[in-house]
Amino acid sequence: MSRPLTDVEQTCWRAYVESSWALHTRLEDELRAATGLSMADYHVMVVLSEAPDRRLRMGELAGRLVFSPSRITYQIASMVKRGLVRKQSCPQDGRGQEAMLTDAGMAELVRAAPLHLTTVRESFIDHLDPEELAVIARAFTKIRKA
Amino acid sequence: MSRPLTDVEQTCWRAYVESSWALHTRLEDELRAATGLSMADYHVMVVLSEAPDRRLRMGELAGRLVFSPSRITYQIASMVKRGLVRKQSCPQDGRGQEAMLTDAGMAELVRAAPLHLTTVRESFIDHLDPEELAVIARAFTKIRKA
Repeated sequence: MSRPLTDVEQTCWRAYVESSWALHTRLEDELRAATGLSMADYHVMVVLSEAPDRRLRMGELAGRLVFSPSRITYQIASMVKRGLVRKQSCPQDGRGQEAMLTDAGMAELVRAAPLHLTTVRESFIDHLDPEELAVIARAFTKIRKA
Repeated sequence: MSRPLTDVEQTCWRAYVESSWALHTRLEDELRAATGLSMADYHVMVVLSEAPDRRLRMGELAGRLVFSPSRITYQIASMVKRGLVRKQSCPQDGRGQEAMLTDAGMAELVRAAPLHLTTVRESFIDHLDPEELAVIARAFTKIRKA
């Protein structure tokens, strides 16, 4: 069994997990109210918008989002239905499947981005001083890779 | 419209949001696979377990979890069905409703806690040095209050 958290560790974890939970809920609620998109939709759109030709293999997209195979299949099917994403065979490998951001999907992302930015600033970035920005960037990059 | 993020802010936000997303998915998947509980179940159980007599008014519980009224109603109904929580009238105010952690719910929490602790250590706490623990605790406490 793992060692219990020390007081310092417990304080850090509770501060992080409770505020992340609240932040995630706020981002999700504000995005959905203004655009009808979920955070999962938004993440998929950001990742695809940054890929060459705005497309990625399903497996690679799942890896980037840390989604299980069944979850990515469900997520992309829902976005295909709404016209945000198209599924197609890989040019290099006829058996593989790619997800591609449609023009309509790109337009939705461009429409949603300023609203999302306002929430990110007001609820997170604008509360942090330069040291905190740097330490959080460093620490969470380590955690992401672990 | 909000000012775009600077490079430093963008690096901080992306590191935070991507690793938090991955961490949340991992916590949810590991908890669910081992215990059948969701992170929302777990959070409700932790908050109630720390309340006097293991009970809270529905509105106060919703506030602590940053849940909307409809979401907390749905969440608690699901936990009542599984015997983890009981709903009852407030002793001081017959019209108010409280959620109370049952003995079975407390036992589930005690069973799930060591597994959750292992994930928290392996995926987060054990990667942070003392400075990072302190800065993250300070920064996220500010964010939580904002």
